[in-house]
Amino acid sequence: MSRKQLVRPGGRSARVQASVHSAVRELLAEVGRDALTVPVIAQRADVTPSTIYRRWGDLAELLSDVAVERLRPDSEPEDHGDLRSDLTDWAEQFLDEMASGSGRAYIRDALLGDPDGSNAGRCSAYAAEQIDIIFARATGRGENTPDLEGAMDRVVAPMMYRILFRPAGLDAAYARRLVTDLLDAPGTGGR
Amino acid sequence: MSRKQLVRPGGRSARVQASVHSAVRELLAEVGRDALTVPVIAQRADVTPSTIYRRWGDLAELLSDVAVERLRPDSEPEDHGDLRSDLTDWAEQFLDEMASGSGRAYIRDALLGDPDGSNAGRCSAYAAEQIDIIFARATGRGENTPDLEGAMDRVVAPMMYRILFRPAGLDAAYARRLVTDLLDAPGTGGR
Repeated sequence: MSRKQLVRPGGRSARVQASVHSAVRELLAEVGRDALTVPVIAQRADVTPSTIYRRWGDLAELLSDVAVERLRPDSEPEDHGDLRSDLTDWAEQFLDEMASGSGRAYIRDALLGDPDGSNAGRCSAYAAEQIDIIFARATGRGENTPDLEGAMDRVVAPMMYRILFRPAGLDAAYARRLVTDLLDAPGTGGR
Repeated sequence: MSRKQLVRPGGRSARVQASVHSAVRELLAEVGRDALTVPVIAQRADVTPSTIYRRWGDLAELLSDVAVERLRPDSEPEDHGDLRSDLTDWAEQFLDEMASGSGRAYIRDALLGDPDGSNAGRCSAYAAEQIDIIFARATGRGENTPDLEGAMDRVVAPMMYRILFRPAGLDAAYARRLVTDLLDAPGTGGR
């Protein structure tokens, strides 16, 4: 689904989404989450509340969609010329962003208003796509790469699990150790 | 905090918690989550709504507390006489329970009404305590055990991450492979 998000058709539907999303982002910054209501958002976005209810169901689902958009990577991972550097750098940045106050708030919003799990799936797909780019580059250089699902289990899952359930002691050294352990002791890998 | 939960003083506070929790469990089964309100729960529990608001803040925080109680292990892990069997059996049961419909609902509730993260921390502590018991037994037998935090990263985190973000293909074989990879390629372990 993340691919669809990258497409920006100029139709009304896309314009409504863009104006409602930016209204939510503005109001989150101006008045905070507790003061957000669908009518307030509709007024700022210059749409009717029923347009928002029809499209998003309720405020939680709208906030989830906005959060997933904010969690979408806006660029490809940096290319440092080797797998270990690329994956380490990406993991450090990923943890830094996701463990930040705004990162945690977006992860929570993404999960909360997500009855069918599709937004959580998009968050996971974003990380998998970034790692897949890093692995494809490495393969192009003739480097061996771990299994992608194994990297999700060994690098992404521990960071996201600890952010949500066990946040003490999360730092760049932790992200680096996860990558080192994956590359030096890959196990059978993945699912 | 899970230890405190194991203590059941007979005071009023404990009686109120017990009656409100059981009222929520009954009503979840009878009328479903969407029909739950604090007044309805208060009536069933024979307390005033203000008692619930004073103690839990709002419905989401009450549901979070009830969910964490439901996620608390009611027994120690089975003892099969060796580390690999004990950890594999525990991981298979953990995934089976947490990935079930009710398990996912409790995990969501636990996270959603948890502004300070303490309930999420209790969920994580429950798993760590069970694994710690398995490791203590193994050490008593003279077996080498991995680092506890490493086991959280390599076994618990991937299962919980996939339940929340990437649920396809979760089965007992997946739980077994996570344990096999931890015991056969432990890496540097933990945080």
